Amino acid sequence: MSIISIIGSGGMAAAIGGLAAKAGHMVEVMSRDPAKAKVLADRIGDGVTTAAFGTAPVGEIIILAVPYAVVLDVVKQYGEGLAGKLLIDITNPVASDLKSLVTPQDSFGAQEIARAAPADAHIVKAFNTHFSHVLAAGSIESRSLDVFIAGDDVQAKARVSAFVESLGLRPLVVGQRAMARTLEHMCLLSLGLVAHSIKHTNFAIGVSLPS
Amino acid sequence: MSIISIIGSGGMAAAIGGLAAKAGHMVEVMSRDPAKAKVLADRIGDGVTTAAFGTAPVGEIIILAVPYAVVLDVVKQYGEGLAGKLLIDITNPVASDLKSLVTPQDSFGAQEIARAAPADAHIVKAFNTHFSHVLAAGSIESRSLDVFIAGDDVQAKARVSAFVESLGLRPLVVGQRAMARTLEHMCLLSLGLVAHSIKHTNFAIGVSLPS
Repeated sequence: MSIISIIGSGGMAAAIGGLAAKAGHMVEVMSRDPAKAKVLADRIGDGVTTAAFGTAPVGEIIILAVPYAVVLDVVKQYGEGLAGKLLIDITNPVASDLKSLVTPQDSFGAQEIARAAPADAHIVKAFNTHFSHVLAAGSIESRSLDVFIAGDDVQAKARVSAFVESLGLRPLVVGQRAMARTLEHMCLLSLGLVAHSIKHTNFAIGVSLPS
Repeated sequence: MSIISIIGSGGMAAAIGGLAAKAGHMVEVMSRDPAKAKVLADRIGDGVTTAAFGTAPVGEIIILAVPYAVVLDVVKQYGEGLAGKLLIDITNPVASDLKSLVTPQDSFGAQEIARAAPADAHIVKAFNTHFSHVLAAGSIESRSLDVFIAGDDVQAKARVSAFVESLGLRPLVVGQRAMARTLEHMCLLSLGLVAHSIKHTNFAIGVSLPS
């Protein structure tokens, strides 16, 4: 059992928070709108707490479940409250055309977050390749979802892998932080599938392996 | 039935050529090494022909099945022989570290190929997200493979989709040519999975959809 702090109160916060509470983790919810945090905490389950946005999170693992458009400001606002913490970056820096990324060509979302966070925070990219309602369900076609994981710190990746596994999902480490750029591209892939061939969001990208 | 010309004689040429011949398409093989072209043609099946490297391909669909390191030179060498043709770009511009791409940051493989090809050639990215031996098998875990398709010309994408479907695989169009960059990133994803979590190449990235 771990303590998970979730910053945000949208669909991804609800999905990850719901899975975490169900798996027996302690969950703390923080939203700029305290009423929304309360609603989400009550919805996620008994014993889920809320805390004031911007105060130091109690969690060992902190989920950055806010849109990419605001995540850098949020991380800066938390500042030293995130020192030494394991931050899971679930964001996708997608442009409004849904076909390109807003990040500079020589950077990517997780890199920008690392620059905004305290130097000793560990950034791990994960959960960004799924639609929230699919993630909330935890499986599709009775196959549990694959969660791709990228980050520089080996121990942090191992902790995120264990967390993912505790949720009933399959963790798949893909490399160092630089690989987060590739995971961010996978969001474009999903949006491209929605626009061009699949036409809905009830699907998951994953890996087929011989059993 | 279509006429397919394959430029190249490696694993991907064998995989796509094998599937195409089995599906009843006419297949032409062209390799810089005529002996290799002959060996591959004989291996693929009866009636598979060879032609001299650099001469105008007879195929309606031309598979660029050479490594990215040489594909631009190959396309330039064919020159006007590729005018008006549908070129399937299966290449991956992966650097020797297997973690990054060799293309300029403001470009990507399919874009560089389009610049090297005659202006009226249609470039469609496809087949680049699979390992050749998995592609040759056509399925994994008894699920047929997903082939992601990106390109600018709608009719060319439709023809590639029909070709993919004729091979027993599932075509999934993901968008315009710009999305080929994302498909090229998926090769990094596969290589990252091999290096970090899966440790072998007997897998396929695909989409799970409710049936």
